[in-house]
Amino acid sequence: MSITFSWPEESERSKDALKRPDGVDQFRVLPGQEVDLDEYPTRYEGEITKKKALKELEQSKKRLNLLQQLLYATEKRSLLVVLQGMDTSGKDGTIKHVMDAFNPQGCQVSGFKAPTSEELRHDFLWRVHKVVPARGMVGIFNRSHYEDVLIQRVEEMVPKAVWRGRYESIREFEESITEAGTIVVKFFLHISPDEQKKRLEDRLADPTAQWKFKVGDLRVRAKWDEYQTAYEDALTECSTEIAPWYIVPADRKWYRNLVVSRVLEKTLSDLDLEWPPLEEEAKGIEIE
Amino acid sequence: MSITFSWPEESERSKDALKRPDGVDQFRVLPGQEVDLDEYPTRYEGEITKKKALKELEQSKKRLNLLQQLLYATEKRSLLVVLQGMDTSGKDGTIKHVMDAFNPQGCQVSGFKAPTSEELRHDFLWRVHKVVPARGMVGIFNRSHYEDVLIQRVEEMVPKAVWRGRYESIREFEESITEAGTIVVKFFLHISPDEQKKRLEDRLADPTAQWKFKVGDLRVRAKWDEYQTAYEDALTECSTEIAPWYIVPADRKWYRNLVVSRVLEKTLSDLDLEWPPLEEEAKGIEIE
Repeated sequence: MSITFSWPEESERSKDALKRPDGVDQFRVLPGQEVDLDEYPTRYEGEITKKKALKELEQSKKRLNLLQQLLYATEKRSLLVVLQGMDTSGKDGTIKHVMDAFNPQGCQVSGFKAPTSEELRHDFLWRVHKVVPARGMVGIFNRSHYEDVLIQRVEEMVPKAVWRGRYESIREFEESITEAGTIVVKFFLHISPDEQKKRLEDRLADPTAQWKFKVGDLRVRAKWDEYQTAYEDALTECSTEIAPWYIVPADRKWYRNLVVSRVLEKTLSDLDLEWPPLEEEAKGIEIE
Repeated sequence: MSITFSWPEESERSKDALKRPDGVDQFRVLPGQEVDLDEYPTRYEGEITKKKALKELEQSKKRLNLLQQLLYATEKRSLLVVLQGMDTSGKDGTIKHVMDAFNPQGCQVSGFKAPTSEELRHDFLWRVHKVVPARGMVGIFNRSHYEDVLIQRVEEMVPKAVWRGRYESIREFEESITEAGTIVVKFFLHISPDEQKKRLEDRLADPTAQWKFKVGDLRVRAKWDEYQTAYEDALTECSTEIAPWYIVPADRKWYRNLVVSRVLEKTLSDLDLEWPPLEEEAKGIEIE
């Protein structure tokens, strides 16, 4: 028995892409496609209202929860979700408001900050590989191995020849874990510099959020264009058939959450998993 | 600014212990207290209705979520939750229905099944110590180092002198991590053999739950009394001031969940954490 989906009926669909079953594909970077981030909106201006989006998110999360149960029960595949984006783009917020759909028992979040001295004595994929989700599990990367072609490039922590070679290493790494049963989905949360300014100011003003404010983030903000270029190259070089990048308009949090939830839902439902049968020796057994 | 709690007002309190702010203390095994599980009910028969309990659980979980945010933001303490109990007693269910209150980013669930060959070449606390939650985090143990004085004792996997010595090792281990800032809370989910029978039969009958049924569980069920004795000794020997055991009546899932949630809420609120202030160099800063 697999889970069936209540995607909207043909008659209920509007032109708004997110209402179509295949609506999430519009956000996907196709293999070979050259990404120019200026062509991608950061702010959703379509017809879905916030109220409607929040309601749809709740429904989508219920399905996500069921799909994760199936993933956990079958233990055949695992799901790796990569979250990248500039500071305040909503990596933490997406985890809090979408990924809380998952049973914590089947879900592991890994954050990647500045590498430790031990990690620096290994290749850049070492610390990442260790926490790739086991079959049955969902793994969420808050930042990831992509930092090694982003901050390490922009801040010139490694020579160009080194970071250029990493795109291929990443493609091969993601292919290798995919062959072992992991599904890889990557989200770039795309915000505008104006929206970031607003969010940083909000943090400064809110006593329950001030702890998130780091002066160091402003140094990254000052190099906005360089980071966008580094992102464009990473998205162009590493969006493959088996490990696609999705570019999510993230200036509006409620739309960002809905897109991420829908993509995950689509990804998991495409696996077409079924509940495992009762083990052979348990058939016809009586409990005493 | 710390979080204030809406425990029921004096005037609203009934005789029902869970409605008193200190109501959760009734479930706590006091240091030095000798536990006889026959004296502890498995089935709640008090005046709280299921409907009321579910409503209170939702409210409690909202507070839990806020408290965890504080724990995460302050990075001063961590919380370790140990879940133990016979098969079907609700370890998984408690994680699914209570621990989903936590932001997945600040929460890690570790399950302890039969040790691997590498783990067997280490002392019994080795695999457990590795996953003790870091400051700011909640760690949930689905089974734990207590299996080493439960199944290992009943199934005679180690000599008596070995498992007897482990109570002291456990007390010292828990004291040592507590001194470093971890709060330890342990739950024994107490069910009756009749309730287990019913739940196992339900699993057999439900195509979406059959995967959870393992014939091997029946061998453990056959030794019910031996396991209860082993639990009594573990609860008696290892409920300390700093790492208490709580015995939770678990025949009714909705009551079990409410008790666990309330205990966690009380434990975290007793820490009296406050939001960290803005970093010094960020004061008066302007975002450009």
